[in-house]
Amino acid sequence: MKLLKEYIEKNGKAIGTNILKVDSFLNHQIDPNLMMAMGEEFKRRFEDQGINKILTIEASGIAIGLAAAYAFNVPLVFAKKKIPSTMGDFYTANVFSFTKNKDYTICVAKEFLKPTDRVLIVDDFLAMGNAVLGLKSLVESAGAEVIGAGIAVEKGFQQGEKLLIDNGVKVEALAVVDSLENGVIKFR
Amino acid sequence: MKLLKEYIEKNGKAIGTNILKVDSFLNHQIDPNLMMAMGEEFKRRFEDQGINKILTIEASGIAIGLAAAYAFNVPLVFAKKKIPSTMGDFYTANVFSFTKNKDYTICVAKEFLKPTDRVLIVDDFLAMGNAVLGLKSLVESAGAEVIGAGIAVEKGFQQGEKLLIDNGVKVEALAVVDSLENGVIKFR
Repeated sequence: MKLLKEYIEKNGKAIGTNILKVDSFLNHQIDPNLMMAMGEEFKRRFEDQGINKILTIEASGIAIGLAAAYAFNVPLVFAKKKIPSTMGDFYTANVFSFTKNKDYTICVAKEFLKPTDRVLIVDDFLAMGNAVLGLKSLVESAGAEVIGAGIAVEKGFQQGEKLLIDNGVKVEALAVVDSLENGVIKFR
Repeated sequence: MKLLKEYIEKNGKAIGTNILKVDSFLNHQIDPNLMMAMGEEFKRRFEDQGINKILTIEASGIAIGLAAAYAFNVPLVFAKKKIPSTMGDFYTANVFSFTKNKDYTICVAKEFLKPTDRVLIVDDFLAMGNAVLGLKSLVESAGAEVIGAGIAVEKGFQQGEKLLIDNGVKVEALAVVDSLENGVIKFR
């Protein structure tokens, strides 16, 4: 997606060979016009597939999730990283965080995932793919179907895309960064 | 705001006299059309005041924050509850959580709050008012100005509104619930 790549080129920062800092427009400060345009782009890429729900994970997935939900005109559900005290029955999954080198639990209330749901998983970043696989597990616990994963920025030099494809998930990333070597952001 | 009150009447649940559950449309599952309409309503209520930034707090403020930012056509910044390892200089504030009976720290990177900023603070709920005061403290640390607080649902039977007014904050709540006694949701 041209607009997103322009934002990354202009405002993104490579930190070492592994971290792409995009917090001036994607996940700390957020440009609402870029966000809504990305939602529209997901709509174009997953048109006519009967998607009736967007699923993401708090916190940094919520903005892009809302943009997608608005474009598709369907509800957004975001998985929580803590089980709230007021929540009744829920589906849970474990996600391994490479950043923190430990598992965490994500959950969604059972009432918000139904067997008839055709779900688009959305997230701001795809790195190792574990968060998306955790979300997929929640969807399957409900007997619902994952139609695909819509990602803003994919780190193409990590294993996430391969892992998702091996698990039968169609991946659409709006920008794929294949290298951050020498502080230069290289797109695929 | 009529539309929000209708959603609360139809889908909200009083749990005891203190908890209003709205997680089917506001903060777990999210109705994107309601969200965007609330953003527009904040725009109407704070029109012509030169607001150039929306500030909220992760996670449940992000959706309504994005809706407001889109309506105002200005950036959204969300305060984080953990200091990210890749973040440089930041402003911090302590917020006392009555739910958890302890303080937590919120932070915003210094580059995203400037002395020229005219900030609308946005959040999904107003109860005791501590989160908004914490956000106000971040804004003031940057030498910027708080123009007001836009709240989706205010618990009118708690002290938040009074505390904010006493601290010079103009509050606009889209729905004020004055009582949850006997399982009945009463609006002001």
